[in-house]
Amino acid sequence: MDEFQNLKSYKKLQELAKKNIDLTSEKISTQRISEFISQNCGFKFFYGLEKIDKEILNNLFELASDAKALDKMDAMQGGEVINYIEGHESDNRMVLHTALRDCFKDRRKEKNAIEASNLAYKEIEKLKKFIDRIDREGKFTDLIQIGIGGSILGPHAMNQALNVYRKKNRNVHFVSNVDPDDLVQTLRNVDLSKTLVVSVSKSGTTLETITNEEFIKKELHKKGLDPKEHLIAVTAKGSPMDNNNNYLEVFYIWDFVGGRFSPTSMVGGAALSFACGTDVYMKLLEGAHDMDKNALLKDMKNNLPLLAALLGIWNRNFLKYPSIAIIPYSSALFYFCYQIQQYDMESNGKSIDRKAKRVTFETGPVVFANIGTDAQHSFFQFLHQGTDITPIEFIGFKNSQYNEDITFKETTSQQKLLSNLFGQAIALAKGKKSKNPNKNFEGNRPSSILLADKLTPYALGALMSYYEHKAAFQGFIWGINSFDQEGVQLGKVLADQMMNLFAHKKENFPLGEAFLKECGML
Amino acid sequence: MDEFQNLKSYKKLQELAKKNIDLTSEKISTQRISEFISQNCGFKFFYGLEKIDKEILNNLFELASDAKALDKMDAMQGGEVINYIEGHESDNRMVLHTALRDCFKDRRKEKNAIEASNLAYKEIEKLKKFIDRIDREGKFTDLIQIGIGGSILGPHAMNQALNVYRKKNRNVHFVSNVDPDDLVQTLRNVDLSKTLVVSVSKSGTTLETITNEEFIKKELHKKGLDPKEHLIAVTAKGSPMDNNNNYLEVFYIWDFVGGRFSPTSMVGGAALSFACGTDVYMKLLEGAHDMDKNALLKDMKNNLPLLAALLGIWNRNFLKYPSIAIIPYSSALFYFCYQIQQYDMESNGKSIDRKAKRVTFETGPVVFANIGTDAQHSFFQFLHQGTDITPIEFIGFKNSQYNEDITFKETTSQQKLLSNLFGQAIALAKGKKSKNPNKNFEGNRPSSILLADKLTPYALGALMSYYEHKAAFQGFIWGINSFDQEGVQLGKVLADQMMNLFAHKKENFPLGEAFLKECGML
Repeated sequence: MDEFQNLKSYKKLQELAKKNIDLTSEKISTQRISEFISQNCGFKFFYGLEKIDKEILNNLFELASDAKALDKMDAMQGGEVINYIEGHESDNRMVLHTALRDCFKDRRKEKNAIEASNLAYKEIEKLKKFIDRIDREGKFTDLIQIGIGGSILGPHAMNQALNVYRKKNRNVHFVSNVDPDDLVQTLRNVDLSKTLVVSVSKSGTTLETITNEEFIKKELHKKGLDPKEHLIAVTAKGSPMDNNNNYLEVFYIWDFVGGRFSPTSMVGGAALSFACGTDVYMKLLEGAHDMDKNALLKDMKNNLPLLAALLGIWNRNFLKYPSIAIIPYSSALFYFCYQIQQYDMESNGKSIDRKAKRVTFETGPVVFANIGTDAQHSFFQFLHQGTDITPIEFIGFKNSQYNEDITFKETTSQQKLLSNLFGQAIALAKGKKSKNPNKNFEGNRPSSILLADKLTPYALGALMSYYEHKAAFQGFIWGINSFDQEGVQLGKVLADQMMNLFAHKKENFPLGEAFLKECGML
Repeated sequence: MDEFQNLKSYKKLQELAKKNIDLTSEKISTQRISEFISQNCGFKFFYGLEKIDKEILNNLFELASDAKALDKMDAMQGGEVINYIEGHESDNRMVLHTALRDCFKDRRKEKNAIEASNLAYKEIEKLKKFIDRIDREGKFTDLIQIGIGGSILGPHAMNQALNVYRKKNRNVHFVSNVDPDDLVQTLRNVDLSKTLVVSVSKSGTTLETITNEEFIKKELHKKGLDPKEHLIAVTAKGSPMDNNNNYLEVFYIWDFVGGRFSPTSMVGGAALSFACGTDVYMKLLEGAHDMDKNALLKDMKNNLPLLAALLGIWNRNFLKYPSIAIIPYSSALFYFCYQIQQYDMESNGKSIDRKAKRVTFETGPVVFANIGTDAQHSFFQFLHQGTDITPIEFIGFKNSQYNEDITFKETTSQQKLLSNLFGQAIALAKGKKSKNPNKNFEGNRPSSILLADKLTPYALGALMSYYEHKAAFQGFIWGINSFDQEGVQLGKVLADQMMNLFAHKKENFPLGEAFLKECGML
């Protein structure tokens, strides 16, 4: 038995799962909606349509206590080494993305945490000066960020989400894939002479990024432009990219910030500040910081990321749902869907616990996401009438960003949007009986709703931190290490072997050879 | 017992599932790669890394025969009424999206099919004239398509996938969501005086689309422009939108084409032809048509959509995997991922069979998708080392679209891209033992690879038809109706009730009221 399954509250929760809370019943009343609400950082969290009751909720809080989830969050934010596997070679690092935004009130007191946040703040100051200079010189209208995974998803998501704050004549583009078409197409849309290029790779050796950087350098040279006047690096001190001779500016990141947790660093800060100004970036950091503090709250009911983590564990390990869907009712969060997916699936798609034992329970689920109402017209058929049940996390905002709207048939578009969000959540829970079996809705499909006033920089920062900490809390409770990603290594090794085949180098890789031969490529 | 489970081959396949084919074994050899290849329409399909052997494959073909899958495909393409549920009110329609492209050689002979393809071809001719006129007049540089679900996903995907064919000074934009920010942001990027607006709604009453159309009309009026000179409708004959007084042109669609199956009609043809010309559109139709013919092929091994459908059923019903991931290694297919998800989850996320009986087996799985290599850096950790197994469908192309590339470290970017595709498939199957449990890869995770020379209009058309027919074949074998979407209705009804609350109309909807009150919105 694994530690998670040995927690005192685990057995009790297994028993409670047999209760089978029925969301279609009369008991799912208006009173229940009001009872299961929590709030913090400008968000209101509704979970009255989850398959829980007070007893279950209290036992989930017990589970968090038994697993010392809050202590572990505190240790993380305090700079303890928590990215490790016992008794085996592992990253063996601190996990201090919270230090990236610990520059407001109530700063951490621990030496490691202070050092980290001082380092981070130094980069913020460097960035402010850099952006001031760029603004003053007025040379650049466009910025292309190259990077992949954590170096691009979050930054892309942030820029899309806050596009309403973008300055006139400032455009940002993101190129991630080693697919040459990705970059070529972007290059057609910019005037390179007016374009900054932010190249992001912690190691300074990421295949996709280095290749795309070389590609852009070639294009700059072709146009008689000096790459050094256009390129910015975001990388670790001492990496091959840490070289002021090659870059207009070098910003640092550190090994205590994992890729997917890095967008609040210069990884995301540089492009966002170029587009929207450093004030917007600072507001985003403030939102993230406040949610970091919220994640330490001992009043578990109003500790939003912890509460969300516990409901996720309830659905995954006790009700046995293998997937979750995340549906933000805001087009601005389209790319953020990918960021949430990464936070969760890269952090918790693991089979080994901290003691290097193969777990015998389910860890991170499949996470799929898309914005509403679009998703209603693609996969909601499955959510309502499929043979499997997928719990849903809805996200919404009371007000639109642009504050331009139309009243049509007595409601605004924003009201129609929210009507759909609430309507879907209620429909999934309550269902509807019909004599026509094909028009019958079994209901009893759980969901939660996270709602804020408006998608501001502050709200986005808080939302990013919320999903970071939700994943972290689940890892703490499952006893796994949510902060490494060893699972991506083997694919890289075999891709390298394939490249050797393409380059006609000696390589013992018969399966790879077979594919290339069958494709007529060898 | 349901029909599917009564098929003669079902029991045998249940037995065969116990074989537990081990992909990590030595038996997974180069010979096996060559043995399990099928091809058609310019695609090569590799399935040697699926958990099958010859016996299993033969029994899957038996399953298709037992279920009369090919006869049903033929009936569909011949215009029989197959969108129905026995003994209950249902759509009761033909399913003739194949008629939309039945304008090449070997046309269907059946009366219904001929009538349908004649109707479709009339619209194609109308479109050709219309585009000629637009080209001649040279007034329009931009096109905004408004629609949602089937009226936008496919068209958006087609235009992104074929962006390389786009004419200079022709831009297309897609607005779907009722979220007002979605449209407002798009309007900031166009000069309305040079913009065509294609409004797509079969019923002419789709909430999101009508609202956005009203919004655009208001903006046109503001700028002193006449909506009639800018708007095009794509709708059903007789719908509220079928009115030449309000539109520059009205194109027709019909009830024998479901929303998600409509992008090869004017729903997708208008925007694609505006951007890339009608030749590109016709090539796409030809690819789709050839794959339609392929779906009728009695040699099941080379009937690609049928083969893919059978492998999917093997994974879903016999190996019990609850989800699949689809990973095209081409940035141009980013939006197409959503289209594939819709084909599958909206078609087969059903619980009722054709005889209106609740099924007791699993139907359509969760489908999630993203392009490679990007997905490698987000959710591949889960695919390699998660506790659940998700089978994968890889898609790739030997050549890039723009044919601009860089050789870096002895390989081109396109070669790097393909190296990753093959490397991942092999890594997932074979795994790799390590003494460090955290660096251990259990492997034995199945996948298939669909490969073509290049993403051309023809290849895209074939790919669209492939996924349409894959979903249809699975529905035929499961005995469900893949062509309706009753599951989206209840959400609409409750959203309407919520709108009534917002509009302060009398409405008995206490749960909805509770949410709005708690949000301070009532």
